[in-house]
Amino acid sequence: MKSKKKIISKHKKSIKKSEVLRKFIKDIDLNSKSKVSITGKVNRIAQTGGPTVFVITDGTGSLSIKGFIGPGQRAYPEIEEEDVVKATISIEEFRGDMEGEISSMFKVSEVQHVEFLKSLEKIELERARVVAPPFLVKSPILTKLESRFIDAATQIRLAIIQDRPIIVRHHNDADGYSSGFALERAILPLIAEQHSSVKAAWEFFQRAPCQAPYYEIDDSLRDTANSLRNAAKFSNKMPLIIIADNGSSPEDLMAIKQGKIHGADFIVIDHHGFDEDVISSEVLVHINPFLVGEDGSHYSAGMLCTEFARFVNPNVQNVKQIAAMAGFADMIQLGNPSVMEEYLTIAKSEGYTRELLSDISLVIDYVSAKVRFMEVREYIEVLFGQPRDKQKELVSLMAPYIRNLDAKGLAIGKSTAEQKKIGNAVLQMIDIDETFPGFGFFPKPGRAVGLVHDNLQKEKGITSLVTAGIMRTAITLRATDEANFSVHALLKYLNEKIPNGFIGGGGHKNAGSLNFLPKKKDEVVKHLKEFIKERQ
Amino acid sequence: MKSKKKIISKHKKSIKKSEVLRKFIKDIDLNSKSKVSITGKVNRIAQTGGPTVFVITDGTGSLSIKGFIGPGQRAYPEIEEEDVVKATISIEEFRGDMEGEISSMFKVSEVQHVEFLKSLEKIELERARVVAPPFLVKSPILTKLESRFIDAATQIRLAIIQDRPIIVRHHNDADGYSSGFALERAILPLIAEQHSSVKAAWEFFQRAPCQAPYYEIDDSLRDTANSLRNAAKFSNKMPLIIIADNGSSPEDLMAIKQGKIHGADFIVIDHHGFDEDVISSEVLVHINPFLVGEDGSHYSAGMLCTEFARFVNPNVQNVKQIAAMAGFADMIQLGNPSVMEEYLTIAKSEGYTRELLSDISLVIDYVSAKVRFMEVREYIEVLFGQPRDKQKELVSLMAPYIRNLDAKGLAIGKSTAEQKKIGNAVLQMIDIDETFPGFGFFPKPGRAVGLVHDNLQKEKGITSLVTAGIMRTAITLRATDEANFSVHALLKYLNEKIPNGFIGGGGHKNAGSLNFLPKKKDEVVKHLKEFIKERQ
Amino acid sequence: MKSKKKIISKHKKSIKKSEVLRKFIKDIDLNSKSKVSITGKVNRIAQTGGPTVFVITDGTGSLSIKGFIGPGQRAYPEIEEEDVVKATISIEEFRGDMEGEISSMFKVSEVQHVEFLKSLEKIELERARVVAPPFLVKSPILTKLESRFIDAATQIRLAIIQDRPIIVRHHNDADGYSSGFALERAILPLIAEQHSSVKAAWEFFQRAPCQAPYYEIDDSLRDTANSLRNAAKFSNKMPLIIIADNGSSPEDLMAIKQGKIHGADFIVIDHHGFDEDVISSEVLVHINPFLVGEDGSHYSAGMLCTEFARFVNPNVQNVKQIAAMAGFADMIQLGNPSVMEEYLTIAKSEGYTRELLSDISLVIDYVSAKVRFMEVREYIEVLFGQPRDKQKELVSLMAPYIRNLDAKGLAIGKSTAEQKKIGNAVLQMIDIDETFPGFGFFPKPGRAVGLVHDNLQKEKGITSLVTAGIMRTAITLRATDEANFSVHALLKYLNEKIPNGFIGGGGHKNAGSLNFLPKKKDEVVKHLKEFIKERQ
Repeated sequence: MKSKKKIISKHKKSIKKSEVLRKFIKDIDLNSKSKVSITGKVNRIAQTGGPTVFVITDGTGSLSIKGFIGPGQRAYPEIEEEDVVKATISIEEFRGDMEGEISSMFKVSEVQHVEFLKSLEKIELERARVVAPPFLVKSPILTKLESRFIDAATQIRLAIIQDRPIIVRHHNDADGYSSGFALERAILPLIAEQHSSVKAAWEFFQRAPCQAPYYEIDDSLRDTANSLRNAAKFSNKMPLIIIADNGSSPEDLMAIKQGKIHGADFIVIDHHGFDEDVISSEVLVHINPFLVGEDGSHYSAGMLCTEFARFVNPNVQNVKQIAAMAGFADMIQLGNPSVMEEYLTIAKSEGYTRELLSDISLVIDYVSAKVRFMEVREYIEVLFGQPRDKQKELVSLMAPYIRNLDAKGLAIGKSTAEQKKIGNAVLQMIDIDETFPGFGFFPKPGRAVGLVHDNLQKEKGITSLVTAGIMRTAITLRATDEANFSVHALLKYLNEKIPNGFIGGGGHKNAGSLNFLPKKKDEVVKHLKEFIKERQ
Repeated sequence: MKSKKKIISKHKKSIKKSEVLRKFIKDIDLNSKSKVSITGKVNRIAQTGGPTVFVITDGTGSLSIKGFIGPGQRAYPEIEEEDVVKATISIEEFRGDMEGEISSMFKVSEVQHVEFLKSLEKIELERARVVAPPFLVKSPILTKLESRFIDAATQIRLAIIQDRPIIVRHHNDADGYSSGFALERAILPLIAEQHSSVKAAWEFFQRAPCQAPYYEIDDSLRDTANSLRNAAKFSNKMPLIIIADNGSSPEDLMAIKQGKIHGADFIVIDHHGFDEDVISSEVLVHINPFLVGEDGSHYSAGMLCTEFARFVNPNVQNVKQIAAMAGFADMIQLGNPSVMEEYLTIAKSEGYTRELLSDISLVIDYVSAKVRFMEVREYIEVLFGQPRDKQKELVSLMAPYIRNLDAKGLAIGKSTAEQKKIGNAVLQMIDIDETFPGFGFFPKPGRAVGLVHDNLQKEKGITSLVTAGIMRTAITLRATDEANFSVHALLKYLNEKIPNGFIGGGGHKNAGSLNFLPKKKDEVVKHLKEFIKERQ
Repeated sequence: MKSKKKIISKHKKSIKKSEVLRKFIKDIDLNSKSKVSITGKVNRIAQTGGPTVFVITDGTGSLSIKGFIGPGQRAYPEIEEEDVVKATISIEEFRGDMEGEISSMFKVSEVQHVEFLKSLEKIELERARVVAPPFLVKSPILTKLESRFIDAATQIRLAIIQDRPIIVRHHNDADGYSSGFALERAILPLIAEQHSSVKAAWEFFQRAPCQAPYYEIDDSLRDTANSLRNAAKFSNKMPLIIIADNGSSPEDLMAIKQGKIHGADFIVIDHHGFDEDVISSEVLVHINPFLVGEDGSHYSAGMLCTEFARFVNPNVQNVKQIAAMAGFADMIQLGNPSVMEEYLTIAKSEGYTRELLSDISLVIDYVSAKVRFMEVREYIEVLFGQPRDKQKELVSLMAPYIRNLDAKGLAIGKSTAEQKKIGNAVLQMIDIDETFPGFGFFPKPGRAVGLVHDNLQKEKGITSLVTAGIMRTAITLRATDEANFSVHALLKYLNEKIPNGFIGGGGHKNAGSLNFLPKKKDEVVKHLKEFIKERQ
């Protein structure tokens, strides 16, 4: 189990000679037949039925070396994980693989320990160093975020060098999947390079959607529990967790804190707004346009991650078209049309038309609703064009099918929707529980309400419209600009008007979802009407 | 990792001699100590931490051969999966296992490539060839389906020879489990023979119930995603999927098409009716009595699969009694009493009484409701008599317990059931949501409605009866012949009478389930009454 | 794969010499270079791609020995699992591990077979023998249960010696988790000792909560199906299942019987009451204060398991504080204040204050609601103080967060709770379905009702109070002593008053949960009021 570290390292000076040659791990190969001496940190100790295996790293690479005092007996019991040791070993070949047999091994002095760790850190940081590439497009948002990109990419590269597992958790919509996939494309090849095992791609990396629109405590418990198990069972390190297209809001705070207690670290790449930034102080790096005085509706998380992927891995493949897809999925063309034009041009040069990008988004939304929390990594790869021919076939089959489901969902929604004139505005209401079949139905309530909302504008030319999908304990809302609506203002209004309503939720100005106690449903609807009236 | 292929092959002619002996893989053994030359297709390439392993197949067997240029480095990078190569190797023994060390290896010429593939296909087809056994019973249905049996069995045998995983997906009732189990009994021993690893039975075969009464898009996504992962992680091929006791209806179409895009192939063995055959053109083989002018109510899928299993594997064990069990579970004795009599005689000769078969069905229905989508392969094996003594113990314990649950379900159903005379017929209605506790309760609504329906006939001698279990978005129906009912006619009727009702579903003439929008429930019930009235 | 059995054995007498030395397995080591002869039972046979591996045990240890007649071919096909054999082997070292190569092997005579099994049983029982430690505290309950402790501990130690997997299934509350964790701490080190593989801790042990307040048929099916799979795939034995803080009631009976049919055995450690003991005759050992004329409300399952853990493993670590935590979680201080005082003193000496114990319980309740049926073994270890510093950090973070959730749950509950004077008592009712958001909400209904119940006493000083949380098919109840309530009497009363109500459930005198058919809800509430009235 020798890991080859190809990420550039310039350290290669020889050290004082003794009876055995002192070497950096990266310089050891099967021709090092005589005894060599290495100094390194013990990364992992595994007791087999035979020898005890110590995985040693010195920043230039890692090497498994073996001590044997009896079958299944712990050799060198005085040496523990995280110790710095000097070991004399003989390199042997066994079935083509390289093995180090320990002749002697001892802990270094306290002084040497500290010195070594300092030098190790320097070597690792040098290898992790990011050379910032030019951005794909020019944007003040990117310029202002560049130093955060460099910091975050360095942390990710460092985690890979240190054999630390990486978990990517993303919003479960098309922009979220785009973010996750761009990160995956950058990170996986570096992990494959770091570990010579083909399965490292699954052992040291996981990408999975969050079910809620934030990284909730349930996600955190699951990630932590699995990581603790891997630490106990396989001596894995605790992970670096990247939250993408989620993570900036106060709702994410407890989950992040919970993970940190167990040794996980976090990076957040988001574009959603927040009232107060409680996240930056808890994570290694926090990337969000709102943190640099910009607007998240002008850059989606998938757009940010496309650019960011190139910082993590200069040779990243198959991500250039993602920015356009993610941006259109999140309607960024409304807030930032020129940048979207540029990304579309880039996507077109990769063979993606606007229509194809939109169809891919549609299929992602559908598949995401079906696979829920499952990773289905390779399936998502096909959807993102690996390989391109299957992507086209799949999207050609599925997109028309899903459009039919949407059409049926729209028709069902229309069949019970009721409109009511309130001042200059129209309030359209759909009783979701009475209208849709329920669990497993596609389109899901939020999507169906959006379809009905868009349709009434087109069909009837109504420009001042609020559409509300009403459920037992929640209401999902869509509004046009002309309706002078605000989800946040409504939330405040309802909590003032309905004491003990325990009304929560949020979203954007013109789209969002609020939840309440079942008993308060009628009151919420009543006050929603008054709220709209007051704002006309 | 040498696979021994014991499926008969008659090819064994020696080829022109050169400096090294040219051999078929099946003729290589540990006595082949000198160098030999093989020509074969590269089935799989695995990079270990040491050498690169190429799995080569020439139709007579497959052999792992190893090239080494450095630890973890890809040897022969110019050679990829699916290439045809000529390799000179030395055979060595290592811990009793056979290894081929590559001395030289190169791609053959384009002409040789084509020639080899042709000969490979011929060899494989010859090994896959099916010798049709006599049927267990005589039936025109079987005679008309025989050529389809041969085609399908050949495809399954070919998939096994080509190391292709097989997935069996079946209806989640007793007939469906019977179908799946008969196929499993035929296929597993062939897979065990093909691969020398004991775990091949789990790596190359899976049997799992569908949750819906068809192979739905969710099943297809899951099967595809898992197979793509196995392809990426273990270089597995995409699977052959056999859909049993499901698969013939238009509802199965999208799921099948979706799987095919990713390289899966399908075989369908069903006995359910359909309006139009949209499946045959999409699958390798489609087996269904309706395709040959026969009636599916005269032969259940489990009966078909019992006969079919003997085409796949002439030595299949422990399946003869399955036909009777499956047939009774699907009430085939009503449509085809003489054939059922014959199968019962066969089952009796295996020690199964009519009562035992019926008890086993009962336990399968119960277990199926509990384990849902899980495979629980070995548990199902016990239920089907492996071993026989545990089967008897288990059924003796569980059957009375389940009959008690059914009795309680019947009493609960009766406690709220209301009867109404409509013309000569009686309509019995049960408000399911108000009557039964809900999720996890056994018997499930459909079963409970059946029990109440049967009971009223027995208790009150009512012979013209329709029983309707009414839920929020669905209605489950049972009718006697005398009631002159038809689920299909009702579906048509309701869709005419209730515009925007989005009423779907189906079933048989006298039993089925329709679904509708929650808001239309009262209208559906009203028109159900009128429908019954009109048909008196 | 040599297992070292360090559990004390005193058998070490040499046996008659022949041409090869006859040895006990524990006496074989890598210095046994010449041929030796062993007699043992074949525990497991595994066919590799190379040799056939036989795992032999003679009671003093187990050893893998290998026979080879051809790659993947079954050596010694006449020898099967459970046979007793005499084998001559040469011991060889390979990569530090010990291997036995078979020179000859044959089944012993029928007489020798019987004799060997008798001696094997004696050796194993001797190794499994329990030396009863003094209890941590004095209590007549413990004294009366001591012989059952010894029997159960012996069975568990025997299962470990026989390489039998152990499954612990416990109630999903703080007392249940405490029980499970105490058992885990005792058992895992013995398993690690028995098998030299580090992964044995996961292969041979599982701890998981039950979802229902008993070991239900669903649990039993899942445990059985998984164990059958492991038996088929890895030649594992069927497990010993320990049910903790559940298991004594008639509701557990079918599940236990079901497991036994497949070869599982059971031990029950519970403190819940039952009308009739139908369990003792079905399990190896049944431990429950009620079985020895004592009251289960005076000793919780976690308290029993803390004491019991020391019988299973005299060197068990990190369990002494568990008794206090479990006891307070189950309010044992009400029934048995002096014993609780003693356990608290012990816990304090381990650094646990009453407040910390209560906070840990709180976090366990919350985490248990989130992780549901998942084991999350290592996460639970942190919660129980492995390591202590993370436990403190985690509890400091989570406890205040959960208390906030409880406070919100209380406020929500209060917002719709209605009080009604009935005689001297007050009946407080909460319509759960109309009050709480539903699935995934914490606190769950039962907990929320408890909070509202306790609060009204504190806030209004009401001392004669019954609080009822009413759902569609269930009612959850809390009562004060003064209210002269009884869940069991109510159950009887309702079943008399409401024929066909199918009312079930149970609990303690002052706390419990009843379920009924949806249609009977109003009747249940009406008769609940009358029941309270009649008892004033």
